[in-house]
Amino acid sequence: MSFFLRHWIAAAAMAVLLLFSVAISGGQESVVGIPGFSPAHAQAERQLEETFRAIPDAARAESNLRHLTSEPHRAGTDASHRVAEWLRDQYRSFGFDTEMVTYKVWLPEPREIKLELTAPVTKSLASPEQPFAGDNQTYDSRVAPAFNAYSPSGDIRGPVVYVNYGMPDDYRDLSSLGVSVEGKIVLARYGRGYRGIKVKLAEEHKAVGVILYSDPEDDGYAAGDPYPGGPWRPASGVQRGSVMYTQIYPGDPLTPGGGATPTVKRITPADAANLPRIPTIPISAQDASVILSNLSGAHVPHGWQGGLAFTYHVGPGDSQVHMKVAIDYAERPIYDVIAKLHGTNDDEWVMLGNHHDAWVFGAADPGSGTSAMLETARALGELVKSGWKPRRTIVICQWDAEEPGLIGSTEWVEEHRAELQAKALVYINTDVGATGPNFAASATPSLKDLVRDATRDVKDPDTLGAVYDAWSEQAARAKREEAGTTRQAPPADPPGKPPLTPLGAGSDFSPFVDFAGVASIDMGFGGDYGVYHSVFDDFYWMKHFGDPHFEYQVALARVLGTVALRLDQADLLPFDYSAYGAEMEQEARNLATAAARQPEETASVKIVTDAAARFAASASRESQALAGISSFPQDPKVTETINRNLAEVERDFLAPEGLAGRPWFKHTLFAPGSYTGYSAEVMPGVTEALTRHDLPVLRREANAVAAALERAARRLDDIAHLARQTNASPVEGR
Amino acid sequence: MSFFLRHWIAAAAMAVLLLFSVAISGGQESVVGIPGFSPAHAQAERQLEETFRAIPDAARAESNLRHLTSEPHRAGTDASHRVAEWLRDQYRSFGFDTEMVTYKVWLPEPREIKLELTAPVTKSLASPEQPFAGDNQTYDSRVAPAFNAYSPSGDIRGPVVYVNYGMPDDYRDLSSLGVSVEGKIVLARYGRGYRGIKVKLAEEHKAVGVILYSDPEDDGYAAGDPYPGGPWRPASGVQRGSVMYTQIYPGDPLTPGGGATPTVKRITPADAANLPRIPTIPISAQDASVILSNLSGAHVPHGWQGGLAFTYHVGPGDSQVHMKVAIDYAERPIYDVIAKLHGTNDDEWVMLGNHHDAWVFGAADPGSGTSAMLETARALGELVKSGWKPRRTIVICQWDAEEPGLIGSTEWVEEHRAELQAKALVYINTDVGATGPNFAASATPSLKDLVRDATRDVKDPDTLGAVYDAWSEQAARAKREEAGTTRQAPPADPPGKPPLTPLGAGSDFSPFVDFAGVASIDMGFGGDYGVYHSVFDDFYWMKHFGDPHFEYQVALARVLGTVALRLDQADLLPFDYSAYGAEMEQEARNLATAAARQPEETASVKIVTDAAARFAASASRESQALAGISSFPQDPKVTETINRNLAEVERDFLAPEGLAGRPWFKHTLFAPGSYTGYSAEVMPGVTEALTRHDLPVLRREANAVAAALERAARRLDDIAHLARQTNASPVEGR
Repeated sequence: MSFFLRHWIAAAAMAVLLLFSVAISGGQESVVGIPGFSPAHAQAERQLEETFRAIPDAARAESNLRHLTSEPHRAGTDASHRVAEWLRDQYRSFGFDTEMVTYKVWLPEPREIKLELTAPVTKSLASPEQPFAGDNQTYDSRVAPAFNAYSPSGDIRGPVVYVNYGMPDDYRDLSSLGVSVEGKIVLARYGRGYRGIKVKLAEEHKAVGVILYSDPEDDGYAAGDPYPGGPWRPASGVQRGSVMYTQIYPGDPLTPGGGATPTVKRITPADAANLPRIPTIPISAQDASVILSNLSGAHVPHGWQGGLAFTYHVGPGDSQVHMKVAIDYAERPIYDVIAKLHGTNDDEWVMLGNHHDAWVFGAADPGSGTSAMLETARALGELVKSGWKPRRTIVICQWDAEEPGLIGSTEWVEEHRAELQAKALVYINTDVGATGPNFAASATPSLKDLVRDATRDVKDPDTLGAVYDAWSEQAARAKREEAGTTRQAPPADPPGKPPLTPLGAGSDFSPFVDFAGVASIDMGFGGDYGVYHSVFDDFYWMKHFGDPHFEYQVALARVLGTVALRLDQADLLPFDYSAYGAEMEQEARNLATAAARQPEETASVKIVTDAAARFAASASRESQALAGISSFPQDPKVTETINRNLAEVERDFLAPEGLAGRPWFKHTLFAPGSYTGYSAEVMPGVTEALTRHDLPVLRREANAVAAALERAARRLDDIAHLARQTNASPVEGR
Repeated sequence: MSFFLRHWIAAAAMAVLLLFSVAISGGQESVVGIPGFSPAHAQAERQLEETFRAIPDAARAESNLRHLTSEPHRAGTDASHRVAEWLRDQYRSFGFDTEMVTYKVWLPEPREIKLELTAPVTKSLASPEQPFAGDNQTYDSRVAPAFNAYSPSGDIRGPVVYVNYGMPDDYRDLSSLGVSVEGKIVLARYGRGYRGIKVKLAEEHKAVGVILYSDPEDDGYAAGDPYPGGPWRPASGVQRGSVMYTQIYPGDPLTPGGGATPTVKRITPADAANLPRIPTIPISAQDASVILSNLSGAHVPHGWQGGLAFTYHVGPGDSQVHMKVAIDYAERPIYDVIAKLHGTNDDEWVMLGNHHDAWVFGAADPGSGTSAMLETARALGELVKSGWKPRRTIVICQWDAEEPGLIGSTEWVEEHRAELQAKALVYINTDVGATGPNFAASATPSLKDLVRDATRDVKDPDTLGAVYDAWSEQAARAKREEAGTTRQAPPADPPGKPPLTPLGAGSDFSPFVDFAGVASIDMGFGGDYGVYHSVFDDFYWMKHFGDPHFEYQVALARVLGTVALRLDQADLLPFDYSAYGAEMEQEARNLATAAARQPEETASVKIVTDAAARFAASASRESQALAGISSFPQDPKVTETINRNLAEVERDFLAPEGLAGRPWFKHTLFAPGSYTGYSAEVMPGVTEALTRHDLPVLRREANAVAAALERAARRLDDIAHLARQTNASPVEGR
């Protein structure tokens, strides 16, 4: 058989296969091939991946985590610098080209955090967490008092009002009870939304201070056995955390939109729109119960009672608290590690990342993600040592100062925006990498099937089947348990596939997606995890509850590497725009339903629905044209052009002027909600203008979304055109 | 204007009005007229009702309740006899013809109720309720230890398994955890179903004993402020209650189906199918927490965690309990009071009733219903004293021994079945009459609009609008709060009308509906009420929380009397069979959905759907024919025949052989569910056979339902025929 004949048979088979899978799923889906790979190349890729997946090792993941959690290493401390140096050395030892990047950013250092009930009785609160004799780390004297990063300093006294989760609905309930928080200190339980939203809402409602606490119903004894008997938060456990208004902009408060380099222009803290103006303290359930049980006033509305053993009241009443917050803010250094495994093409980057700073020891958050990512990196290094060379450059980033406000990643993305937009294909994030057996991921719609496909080829440590199957089963179970409740599955999930949520807030993918328009993925294995941001998120916890055999950290290393290798090695990059198109059409339909009653709103939304339809149609044609490409690489220049364009579609969704009221957020299709918590808002400008019935903004945002979809559709048309050309030539040439 | 002409104009107007209201609502609905009344008579009726409604008085309701709650008066005690005698004297003083009816029935008297944890530590449980200094009655030495009526005596030891609510779903959850209760003592929380079902299920799963407790999540501090600070159950509060298997048959266990007269044949307790075989003890949350917190084993499934301040485990574990129940069973006398206000027609009875026995003081249950009913009776007596005479006889019943198992009512209905079936038009029950401002009712479908209409003419004490409007608003609010939860509104409610649930179990309407086929109503005003069946359900509780001004007891007296007067005075009895038909068609459709996948099941259900359609069609024709009657009383004999037949339609639904497995239950369309709690099962034989996939029983039950609907349809055809005849004559004679 001649080369051409063999080649042609294989190519025809692949074309049929891809067309078939397009026909049944509306997207690219592998049965035996791998989307983006020619059949011959797919076989080689499978071989490579299998070699790769054999390398990550549980004992090494464990020793990684032991090192990473050996001391508290909050951003801005020397310990954080030590962790960064160790990470740099690790990546260097794996054969990566490493760089330590430093920025000076506005960071807190707590001096005094004091809370006491002063009436009807006096009681000191804001107590330290209760150490446990079986776990020495809980006695570590280097553990700082629990505080909320970016709370201003303050010394205030006043009555308290309980505001449930402190989210918009809760203030509506309060107002129908005739209770105002003006001049009061609000007590809000953690959950249902980002703490920075709770503080912003309290500020908007004229409260003078905020106390945040962890209710046992949400992550304590009512959820399951508390530490040290189980993985849930003990009564003394405190959730630290940032209250920076990252929903306005993340990163260094003093350098919005620009990297915090020595020369960049800095604003004053008074001008920083992402800094709260009222003091906030985080406390334990145990301390909160002292305040809550002393509130009088109305019995709480339906859904406000938590798990403490008394009847909750809204307050205020005779009880008074005294709150003193003294936090020293200054420009302090942070340390990002950027590690590169250079590929043949050094201008195309497959990026991975996690932060390395932690609130305390950070075993789950972020250690378990980093212990996995280190094994991914080591295995890729091993491949290189045995003679393999990446096709594209693999970049692994370890960010500092994620906990105070995604600072290390944001500053770096802001500084390197132009280079990133030219070179970055995809950013793959992990953070809390393994707290149990349940795989979960969020992704840009074009990458969802890439994640799903990779999980088909990684073994689940518990079931010994594919991670994909365990994930699907768990998702179905969760759906059954939620049946009939108000919580809903992500609307755009195709039936029968495990769900990936849209990328919201809460980790370092945010600047990549929201500011630079780099398609991204966030993933990890979840489970019962109640010790978030407390001293108890330590090595002991991981060894006893989260991932005792470190096998889910290994599984994560394998999924991360499989996804990365597919992106690195693909002939055609596996971006699935037909899935993206279907998702946008669905979201536009949802908007249309929301706007159905107002003619002006309907008109604006129609602009979006029309554009989504146009985008979806182009995407569908583009997918078919790519599926019809019958050989690789026909003309490497053409495929490179196609690939570059495939990655750049995501940039088309950016609007230079950003979203209404928060110009840092450039992506017109996804953003963290301004008031809806960690989760993403889809078409955020339009959605939020609709909620507020703000017609001029709605029109502006609808036009921005439509223009973005239009730009992307035109680019997809170009890709389809190129694909049809490259396809036509070999058939004619044969 | 001649008499005939005036008469004709009025009659034509009414016919148009009724036809119009039929057209818009599918049932009879009053706009200015009253369904069942000629226009002239409606005016007189309104006058009469207004006079009636002016009489009930809050001060008298209060003094009634003070008398009724003056001592603990459990059935079988002398105190219960004293209450019956006082009631008889009251009704006699109002001008009623009274009778004291006594039966000797199998009743419990607790001797020793003991529960202790014996391992890992020893602790005595089953503690008495904690008295409160502000409420002397809580110190009353006559209060018996809390117990469960019809628990057998026993002395057992064993490990404990927590079974959540102890309902069928809970045992499915347990079995998927691999936990068996065989040989164990089960600990079940109250709620979600009748306690006799919990004990029966425990027995079926081979448990050796049952401990029932009140979880603070359900009616304690997590629901709202506990007594004495609020209306909810304090930590020491115990819910007493019967565990008789009333779902098999209620009433004296030794005389199923017959009145417990001296001469009736009695079975032995060993042969009584409604008696539990394993001992049961009710305890407080406080005592339950000692057992629950000592259980080990698996963490509880989703939805099992209650309001106690620790993580719930299923058990068993090392903890052991010792349970001793000594109850003396004997034939003891009970005392029903039957009071009649004779009407012109002494062969048509409008009946009302409530029980008088109480678990302890019984302020809400049943005192608040009785204090209202006494005011209804006094007001009716006043009307008679001022010269009015009932058209039909009004019979008010005060039952004894409802609490142990609907005994007083069941024995009387069983003894008087033939007379009842000949004379009783409707039975109107109230029990817990007023615990707050929320009107609620259950009724036979033909009577729902009668109840709704009556509430339009009674003022709500809080809103000062109609009870109907407050009820509608409250129902809409509840619906909004339930939106998105699994709990569903009654399926057959017409949109825009406040809902009435079907009659289930739990009060004295059961023998009337289920055994004698008398159309019934149950009603009362509800609110926050956590002290059910505890010592705290006393006068203090009512005065401070339930109905402090006794105005809802007065409102209830007015609704009861308005409904009774409309039935007493109607020209045509206001049974709405078109509503009944629509409801049965809807229920048959629901069955068809449930059976959709099994051809044999579908065939059986089709028998029911066809019959329901036939019944609904006849009902619709009957409604139209009645609406077309243009004058009353054209021929009193004919109207009397129509009225007798209207009441007897309900008897057509009885099957002499009863339901599969529980022949005492004769009604084919409604029964308390065998395993679904207090609530009614509609077409119970068919529904339960479908759940079990028992094809032979399904066929039998479907045929029984169809035959019943067929009998009723034929009778409705006869009524329609008579109505068209009586209508034709005056038009021809004019």
